[in-house]
Amino acid sequence: MYRTNTCGELNASYTEKNVVLSGWVAKIRDKGFVVWIDLRDRYGITQLVFDEERTPKQVLEQARGIGRETVIQVSGTVIERASKNPNMATGDIEVLVQKLVILNEAMLPPFTIEDETDGGDDLRMKYRYLDIRRTPIKNNLVFRHKVTMEVRKYLSGQGFIEVETPYLIKSTPEGARDFLVPSRMNEGQFYALPQSPQTFKQLLMVGGLDKYFQIVKCFRDEDLRADRQPEFTQIDCEMAFVEQEDVLTTFEGLTKHLLKEIKGVEPTDFPRMTYDEAMQRYGNDKPDIRFKMEFGELNAVAQHREFNVFNSAELVVGIAVPGAATFTRKEIDALTDWVKRPQVGAKGMVYVKCNEDGSFKSSVDKFYEQEDLAKWAELTRAEAGDLILVLSGETNKTRAQLSALRMELGERLGLRKPDEFAPLWVVDFPLLELDEETGHYHAMHHPFTSPKPGQLDLLDSDPGAVRANAYDLVLNGNEIGGGSIRIHDKEIQAIMFKHLGFTAEEAKAQFGFLMEAFQYGAPPHGGIAFGLDRLVAILGGQETIRDFIAFPKNNSGRDVMIDAPATIDQDQLDELGLKVR
Amino acid sequence: MYRTNTCGELNASYTEKNVVLSGWVAKIRDKGFVVWIDLRDRYGITQLVFDEERTPKQVLEQARGIGRETVIQVSGTVIERASKNPNMATGDIEVLVQKLVILNEAMLPPFTIEDETDGGDDLRMKYRYLDIRRTPIKNNLVFRHKVTMEVRKYLSGQGFIEVETPYLIKSTPEGARDFLVPSRMNEGQFYALPQSPQTFKQLLMVGGLDKYFQIVKCFRDEDLRADRQPEFTQIDCEMAFVEQEDVLTTFEGLTKHLLKEIKGVEPTDFPRMTYDEAMQRYGNDKPDIRFKMEFGELNAVAQHREFNVFNSAELVVGIAVPGAATFTRKEIDALTDWVKRPQVGAKGMVYVKCNEDGSFKSSVDKFYEQEDLAKWAELTRAEAGDLILVLSGETNKTRAQLSALRMELGERLGLRKPDEFAPLWVVDFPLLELDEETGHYHAMHHPFTSPKPGQLDLLDSDPGAVRANAYDLVLNGNEIGGGSIRIHDKEIQAIMFKHLGFTAEEAKAQFGFLMEAFQYGAPPHGGIAFGLDRLVAILGGQETIRDFIAFPKNNSGRDVMIDAPATIDQDQLDELGLKVR
Repeated sequence: MYRTNTCGELNASYTEKNVVLSGWVAKIRDKGFVVWIDLRDRYGITQLVFDEERTPKQVLEQARGIGRETVIQVSGTVIERASKNPNMATGDIEVLVQKLVILNEAMLPPFTIEDETDGGDDLRMKYRYLDIRRTPIKNNLVFRHKVTMEVRKYLSGQGFIEVETPYLIKSTPEGARDFLVPSRMNEGQFYALPQSPQTFKQLLMVGGLDKYFQIVKCFRDEDLRADRQPEFTQIDCEMAFVEQEDVLTTFEGLTKHLLKEIKGVEPTDFPRMTYDEAMQRYGNDKPDIRFKMEFGELNAVAQHREFNVFNSAELVVGIAVPGAATFTRKEIDALTDWVKRPQVGAKGMVYVKCNEDGSFKSSVDKFYEQEDLAKWAELTRAEAGDLILVLSGETNKTRAQLSALRMELGERLGLRKPDEFAPLWVVDFPLLELDEETGHYHAMHHPFTSPKPGQLDLLDSDPGAVRANAYDLVLNGNEIGGGSIRIHDKEIQAIMFKHLGFTAEEAKAQFGFLMEAFQYGAPPHGGIAFGLDRLVAILGGQETIRDFIAFPKNNSGRDVMIDAPATIDQDQLDELGLKVR
Repeated sequence: MYRTNTCGELNASYTEKNVVLSGWVAKIRDKGFVVWIDLRDRYGITQLVFDEERTPKQVLEQARGIGRETVIQVSGTVIERASKNPNMATGDIEVLVQKLVILNEAMLPPFTIEDETDGGDDLRMKYRYLDIRRTPIKNNLVFRHKVTMEVRKYLSGQGFIEVETPYLIKSTPEGARDFLVPSRMNEGQFYALPQSPQTFKQLLMVGGLDKYFQIVKCFRDEDLRADRQPEFTQIDCEMAFVEQEDVLTTFEGLTKHLLKEIKGVEPTDFPRMTYDEAMQRYGNDKPDIRFKMEFGELNAVAQHREFNVFNSAELVVGIAVPGAATFTRKEIDALTDWVKRPQVGAKGMVYVKCNEDGSFKSSVDKFYEQEDLAKWAELTRAEAGDLILVLSGETNKTRAQLSALRMELGERLGLRKPDEFAPLWVVDFPLLELDEETGHYHAMHHPFTSPKPGQLDLLDSDPGAVRANAYDLVLNGNEIGGGSIRIHDKEIQAIMFKHLGFTAEEAKAQFGFLMEAFQYGAPPHGGIAFGLDRLVAILGGQETIRDFIAFPKNNSGRDVMIDAPATIDQDQLDELGLKVR
């Protein structure tokens, strides 16, 4: 037996007890006549003490020679500490060691195993197994486990069953790129790894399993942006015999359960907002509603003067930054530079300071009267002491720019509080999205999303106006889940495929099995999928998903710890009938 | 709202209630003045009634025209049935329908959706979504969900955390074949899909997460034998600071929990048997101990006469088949033919009938006296009325043959009762296994398994004699789990790699990250992995794993429903820099 207790367990109630502990040497302090070692395991740190009076001489010598991160086992007696540490669970006691066994030596680690480490990202990733020893990362992984357990408990309690769908499936070139898996037994043929279990969960609905979920890995071979992973985890869910309202209610229930069990927060019913409203009020389909700074559209009150920048703009829109009238000219210039960066792309920015005395001072005083600016303040809901920032131009771009500015200011002003949770349903998404490069429309969610009843005819006349039975769950400015009511009628599905530019042959080759299944009695159904990595990060009060994944990949899709991907043996290629170009 | 209740829910207490149900038309009986429809959903079947007196005329007409598997929604009133069906949960009532909505038409399905279907395996697999509507398959999937929930509840309650390890890892040509995934971003390089998370779970132990589990898909590109799948699911577990006893106790606890919660069975502590003992007593390292027929080794009492077949054999071994003395000559001949089939490979079989009067009648009466046969009966524990069957030849082969015969007879005699559960630990497996073709030893479990203390020296002198800290959990003649205490010392690991024929370079290229990790303080650790597909099947009283997998592949590794694998577009290949030969 390697231990009687863990390093996070002992307190004053164990005084005088003989215990055996095992763990890693986190720290060692040698005061000559006495040596202290902090022994660490998953559960905490316990202070070990060795002294000249009470410890066998050779054990004291052993302790002296020991290096950090050595794995040891000690036997000893729990004693009360002379100077207690109220910040540690085990801070009232220490263990007076009688016997020490070195279980494994350790080389000096490449970075310190402490909450704040000196290791950079690359080093931490290469030695991820050491990084995981650090409390913040370890806690993130334990936290992730708690979240998935609660998800499963809740959904199972609601009658959902978890069904494993296959990983070796078929490539569908539409959408993001698939990872492919050459088949040896079927030479020249390939499996694909699933981008999501979408079609399988729909087939389960056809199969009558009316409440399905699965916590499942999904794969997308995309050029990785920051904080995207080629393999990621979804909480994938589907229900049959449901309308949109049923789905929203069920998964609002799940989210409330998580907030309550994991964070001790009991939110009221989640607000709902249409996509159009979200775009108008926040310039964003995943607004962070923890803070205001809602958009005020100013066309009516800004396009009647000689200021041509505004007069020629499709949209003039502003936000009121609370208490920011005190920003210096230099600070405002810096903000202007920030919105003009290529990543944001604004041409310029107009500001209005709302003075405490009710007067306004703006960068366009030349063009506008105080009464004009008062109207701007009204529309942006600015109060005395606020700073109004105004952008203008093409509607969609301007909204995106102002949304970026709003989020940046929310961050800088500390309004995005990690311990505050503001969930929001965004509903009525457009069915189709115009690809500006090709001029073609493609499915905003996926080709199985159903249009709103009665809008099928619009597909020809005004495709961009068609709204879908599609919804996103937004938490603190992040989309944590998205879903839709699916098409369950094979005729409508065929019309959709046609409008998405599939020939009948292409639709049959790629989704024939689904179309065929729909002939045998498909029930009305719909669902949702949550991005687990992000959900866990946000519940954990952070936004970097990588710290919540045990073994993440870097931005080139590499696992630098195991050094994958890698070249393979020629005979492996030969067996697959493949040649590398 | 599509329904107020499910089709498995209504009983007499709902009488007079108005309800809305949705589901599939399972059966329709038209008696002219009255029409009955059995409406089916996941939860059961409810009888709908339409009659000329009480049902609106057009609704009755609608019901008449309806085909099987049509998806419908009905509104009506729960009424008591005239003739109740005590075999159905809803058998006391029926729903008198007022309104019927056809939610989706259905073509005639290619096989009947009933417990006993007329669909063959191939057809069922092609239309798996219809097969899943059948109660036995649906129940299997729900059952699988229950098992995984209980596994998670139990392990989480014991302090284990579930950690997701990556699916895109690195190929290790040793062992079974990997499925490979070409990398587009790193052209000419490949990921591999994991055969198991073995190295990652060991790294988690190095990382201090001392109790890990994961229910995880694993992949092996093997030529598929019956009832093997290229993707399969493991309950993968690892613990640090443990000895073999700790692992056995923990997972015996898990297995007892499952037997109790899932099957209502409370077994005593699991018996343990060494590998050597299992081979000697049952000729098998995964004996089914639900029934006896233990091996009796007969060399000492069968090699002293003129019967050369036995005299020249390395092993003469028999079993006593209970009550089989009544077998006819024809039946015994058929059994002899059975063991002589190439799949079993025996040269012949000797039998001894133990007559009720205490005399013996054997096929070798020419060579042996009654007193010889009496000794055979003693050693095989045969009683009056039993039939002793004896094989001989090279030890390992003969044991395997007799084991096959024992299992076959257990099956035929109804001794392998599906509702009886007989778990067993088999321990002290050999560390190495001789590959008869190459003459090389390879790891019986895997290269990370630790030898028994003090046996390292034997690696040179008598490699086959080295025993490992390795164990299997056997249930009803199936290995449901296997594991070991791992090597945590980099020197011993290096010795093992050398003995397994790895050069230092090969070991470094394939397992360098693990060897490196072991330098930074690896704790003693060990674990186990359960084959979930098989575990679920056996708990479900069956042995065919395919019926417990939602979307299984066939013996050529094909998913015949979605028709995968498949050829892919040339530009997908181009992007990967690959050519098909």
